Amino acid sequence: MTTVATPALSTPPPEALVAPPGLAGVIVATTALSDVRGQEGFYHYRQYDAVDLARSCSIEEVWHLLLRGHLPDPDELAAFRATIADGQLLPDEVVQALDGLAADTPPATNPMTRLRTALSMLGGGLGLQPVWDLTPEQRERDAIRVAAQVPVLTAAAYRRSQGLDPVGPRPDLGYTANHLWMITGEEPTDEHVMALERYLCLTVDHGFNASTFTARVVASTGADVAAGVVAALGALSGPLHGGAPSRALDSLDAIGTPDNARPWADAQLAAGNRIMGFGHAIYRGKDPRSELLRETAEELGGPLADLAVAAERAIDDALDAARPDRTLRANVEFYAGVVMHECGIPREMFTPTFAVSRAMGWTAHILEQARDRKIIRPSARY
Amino acid sequence: MTTVATPALSTPPPEALVAPPGLAGVIVATTALSDVRGQEGFYHYRQYDAVDLARSCSIEEVWHLLLRGHLPDPDELAAFRATIADGQLLPDEVVQALDGLAADTPPATNPMTRLRTALSMLGGGLGLQPVWDLTPEQRERDAIRVAAQVPVLTAAAYRRSQGLDPVGPRPDLGYTANHLWMITGEEPTDEHVMALERYLCLTVDHGFNASTFTARVVASTGADVAAGVVAALGALSGPLHGGAPSRALDSLDAIGTPDNARPWADAQLAAGNRIMGFGHAIYRGKDPRSELLRETAEELGGPLADLAVAAERAIDDALDAARPDRTLRANVEFYAGVVMHECGIPREMFTPTFAVSRAMGWTAHILEQARDRKIIRPSARY
Repeated sequence: MTTVATPALSTPPPEALVAPPGLAGVIVATTALSDVRGQEGFYHYRQYDAVDLARSCSIEEVWHLLLRGHLPDPDELAAFRATIADGQLLPDEVVQALDGLAADTPPATNPMTRLRTALSMLGGGLGLQPVWDLTPEQRERDAIRVAAQVPVLTAAAYRRSQGLDPVGPRPDLGYTANHLWMITGEEPTDEHVMALERYLCLTVDHGFNASTFTARVVASTGADVAAGVVAALGALSGPLHGGAPSRALDSLDAIGTPDNARPWADAQLAAGNRIMGFGHAIYRGKDPRSELLRETAEELGGPLADLAVAAERAIDDALDAARPDRTLRANVEFYAGVVMHECGIPREMFTPTFAVSRAMGWTAHILEQARDRKIIRPSARY
Repeated sequence: MTTVATPALSTPPPEALVAPPGLAGVIVATTALSDVRGQEGFYHYRQYDAVDLARSCSIEEVWHLLLRGHLPDPDELAAFRATIADGQLLPDEVVQALDGLAADTPPATNPMTRLRTALSMLGGGLGLQPVWDLTPEQRERDAIRVAAQVPVLTAAAYRRSQGLDPVGPRPDLGYTANHLWMITGEEPTDEHVMALERYLCLTVDHGFNASTFTARVVASTGADVAAGVVAALGALSGPLHGGAPSRALDSLDAIGTPDNARPWADAQLAAGNRIMGFGHAIYRGKDPRSELLRETAEELGGPLADLAVAAERAIDDALDAARPDRTLRANVEFYAGVVMHECGIPREMFTPTFAVSRAMGWTAHILEQARDRKIIRPSARY
């Protein structure tokens, strides 16, 4: 075979900085976008409490805040809405290409992979250029177009997979209402729009999670905006990242009735299983997102919301009994599934709906990272 | 508008580890795959000097080494070749879907975006599952299939974009010969296969560069193998990462004749331009990959190789004169373009050819990362 010898290796330079597993707690960048204060149970966008924003703002206002650094005045908001609506329209050639793609996609393909493939094709169809070849205005235009296409592409792919014709965005509806409209083909109620708007506002951004960090690593190479979002979609498709909202609902299915919640939770914990929708890597104790989503679920009402509230209490008690050393509480995923379900979103569209809001965060991070012109290239110990 | 107040923020916890820009020098993982010793001008795969491997091994042997930890004996090599050949074949349904995709792809789409979109669709078509739901054997099978499809998909997309019918891999040809065959539709000479084989062996893996790290971050979420490779392709499409081989050749075009090399280099440096194909983030001084590639280019011969050798000397001198504080030498990209060009690979296929070998590295890293079950989630300073 081969005569190659294995050389004796010197030891690595001793001054290397060794990061803890998963880079936990390591500050890899400075950001002006947002921050998560896990110990305080608090997170913000541009220094505005994200939960307060979700209570009082539209997703377009929050997006404007994150992207441009301030909440829009009425004129700015109207102009921004028009820019987004423009970004949701595509050249005919690209629409035809995406139609063809959808028709060709093998049926077994899951919604996140459909979205990833369509967005990848969109990047080519729009002829997106490396960010470094663009002016700041061109970069922002690309960021808005790519993010604004996420709900369009994922809803179209979903409807086609159901044998339904896609429905495009309506100019008279806001961003959140359009997301529901494009999935269901029915005009949503104000109550559902309000509930989903809160969910979207709460999930626009949340620190340097795996998908956001992925988008930034890709952006650090100077690649176009779509390359970063496509990569981030891959990270979000991982079960440890974006996969939980529907699994928490699967648990509620398994629980069935409020009375069964405590025995079910005790049995799960006795079997050594993790309970989906509880506990968070950053928050020790309450997840501020779950508080508002519980309130929203209760306002929407319905048997699933009732079951969820009862189950949360029972699971809290079971966790306290089984794990007295830790405070594991409902995270964003637990009530997110309930809220999305009550708004009429099918379970397979939960993670793609998460991608709709998070794409705003990813693209804001891509623009911030691209200003750096420094490639992210860590080391490893052999 | 809104009544949201900006809260006073506490300072971040003082014990946080602050990484240098781009995570340079920060050890983010332990790997058993490979290592780059920048100071020593040396890198290895599994402790075998990569340049020695490239001189004496086929790409299939090197892939086996990286993936399974040892160089194959003849029986293992034959079996591994059969596994790869099997991975290059696709179910009819997936072939039809990819044919449809290629027909629908907007013509402006660049080769890296075509490859990314096709590979994303492939992941769905093969019904790839999250790595954590798979046995080690299933994961390895997915890794080989996805990596082995990179040359198939990119060559097919290239030929279609040229109005040519794709040609599939031939069972009587090796991996490298098949790559040339699938692009050109002509049986390659032994000389070209040998030259390209060296390039592929040299570029299988090279530390935690941006694309490899991207693949590992995505894999840390438990996503399927294709999600990681799709994301890595996005990073490789960035001009700071995979974009240089064709740009170095563009420089040689601009230089034109050996006599013009020094005046051209002086003018570039006087204008404050970076010279593509020179200098490396890790190597201070010679890049071990460029040495063997120069030798290979000289063996292939031809006016471009002659020009490149003369230009390298002149650019070295110009760099020494202009930047006496640094030793900037030809990196892997400078001669890679010359070698690929002489082997008959069109310029637009240089970066996709880089992806052919690097996909072996990415997938080996994905499998290694997936064994960790720890999501990569760093922090940032607001």
